[in-house]
Amino acid sequence: MGFHDKLNEAWTTSGSMLCVGLDPDPAKMPAAMATDPEGVLEFCLGIVDATAHAVCAFKPQIAYFAALGAEDQLERLCAHVRDRHPRAVLILDAKRGDIGPTAERYAEEAFVRYGADAVTVNPYLGTDSLEPFLAHRGKGVIVLCRTSNPGSGDLQSLTVDGEPLYERVARMARDRWSALGEVALVVGATYPTELAKVRAIVGDMPLLVPGIGAQGGDVDATVSAGRDSRGFGMMINSSRAILYASNGADWAAAAREAAETTRDQIRSVA
Amino acid sequence: MGFHDKLNEAWTTSGSMLCVGLDPDPAKMPAAMATDPEGVLEFCLGIVDATAHAVCAFKPQIAYFAALGAEDQLERLCAHVRDRHPRAVLILDAKRGDIGPTAERYAEEAFVRYGADAVTVNPYLGTDSLEPFLAHRGKGVIVLCRTSNPGSGDLQSLTVDGEPLYERVARMARDRWSALGEVALVVGATYPTELAKVRAIVGDMPLLVPGIGAQGGDVDATVSAGRDSRGFGMMINSSRAILYASNGADWAAAAREAAETTRDQIRSVA
Repeated sequence: MGFHDKLNEAWTTSGSMLCVGLDPDPAKMPAAMATDPEGVLEFCLGIVDATAHAVCAFKPQIAYFAALGAEDQLERLCAHVRDRHPRAVLILDAKRGDIGPTAERYAEEAFVRYGADAVTVNPYLGTDSLEPFLAHRGKGVIVLCRTSNPGSGDLQSLTVDGEPLYERVARMARDRWSALGEVALVVGATYPTELAKVRAIVGDMPLLVPGIGAQGGDVDATVSAGRDSRGFGMMINSSRAILYASNGADWAAAAREAAETTRDQIRSVA
Repeated sequence: MGFHDKLNEAWTTSGSMLCVGLDPDPAKMPAAMATDPEGVLEFCLGIVDATAHAVCAFKPQIAYFAALGAEDQLERLCAHVRDRHPRAVLILDAKRGDIGPTAERYAEEAFVRYGADAVTVNPYLGTDSLEPFLAHRGKGVIVLCRTSNPGSGDLQSLTVDGEPLYERVARMARDRWSALGEVALVVGATYPTELAKVRAIVGDMPLLVPGIGAQGGDVDATVSAGRDSRGFGMMINSSRAILYASNGADWAAAAREAAETTRDQIRSVA
């Protein structure tokens, strides 16, 4: 089953568009937990098991593991998601982008080493930098379009031939990259107007939407702007608001409750 | 000593603008060498020791190590360059780009874990995604501008307000990012006309110039287009043409000869 089919099935069986981002920050983790790589793994496994019933996807952010030298733990976390929660879509958030031969290695990192269903990539290097990812049949290639950070407009909102660059990227995704593989786009919840514009361009293409929770994106505005023709269409990511809902002994239960509340909030709009 | 000073000193003491890219591909490595992570490390150490006298910089490409699960070997390779060849600038080619808190982790990966003097980054997410790298005082932040691959024009050559996007990036580097830290730009040797335009915009800002050797960039055209007011100004990268100069028992000597020849070819133009 390919990325798009797996995602569709995850939406319908879970009834959830919530994606939980796994950005383990030792400084914010539960007070009683070890802050070494094994402690980070234990924390992430606890979050995954507490929230899996309420999500369509999990999204480990590789930078948090790389800074700690915790690649082995990330491999085991990914294996756990695949084995114990096979319905959940596993997204490696890596935002890779490089020339062809190097991109092949990054695709191997994401899809073979970590066994991810999808990976986030950066479009700045152009179509031939995306092709090695798209060549992995059945895998998802989630291209940055309009990111959630305050400075995202510095390049992404520059006007090219009468339209902002991020809209051009959305049209390239629709017209060129979709013909080469299974594509999705990243559009931040912090920009609901832009989210609606991208949705209008790409039809029912899936969108990964970070920026609710700690980044301040509004759930109602996000769902209204971004849902597809069937009422799904998004992986709406929350990381910090769920991971660090409590740093006491109740951290897993607090994460579960935060995930269920967010899932229900999303569902109540749709 | 910061990145710019170290680079200036490397140029003048070595008399070389050659950067050797460390992209170890087990399929192309010397026939007698083990293709596991330890074999990859042994190969890279051999290349480094054979070519260090002829270079201003080494540039390990992290994707080649990540695909093999060879982060530990990459750490040891970086430590070897720092300890044995402290004059050479150590560039981690990672092309990272993410929102602020995540970019902080990537900066830690490059500058703390691997101890690099500089890291390559992608500008698509805007200024606030670069700031966590620039905040590491004395470290170099090498921003993608016009990359060497055939498809680089898909986004980078789009016209924004009458100029191509890559020229806008060069101006942002000069006018905004340089005020925040030690900046350089990536411009491919495969586009000498664009290289000359970038040089005209950024004055004596250092440029990392990949694309000679296997990618086909012309050395004469590159040096003529890209040198700065002092006749230096570039880290001209060659990877495959030096690493795989021979796959027989003479691989280290062949790499040395290829590096010296390329250094001299660059020097003969300047």
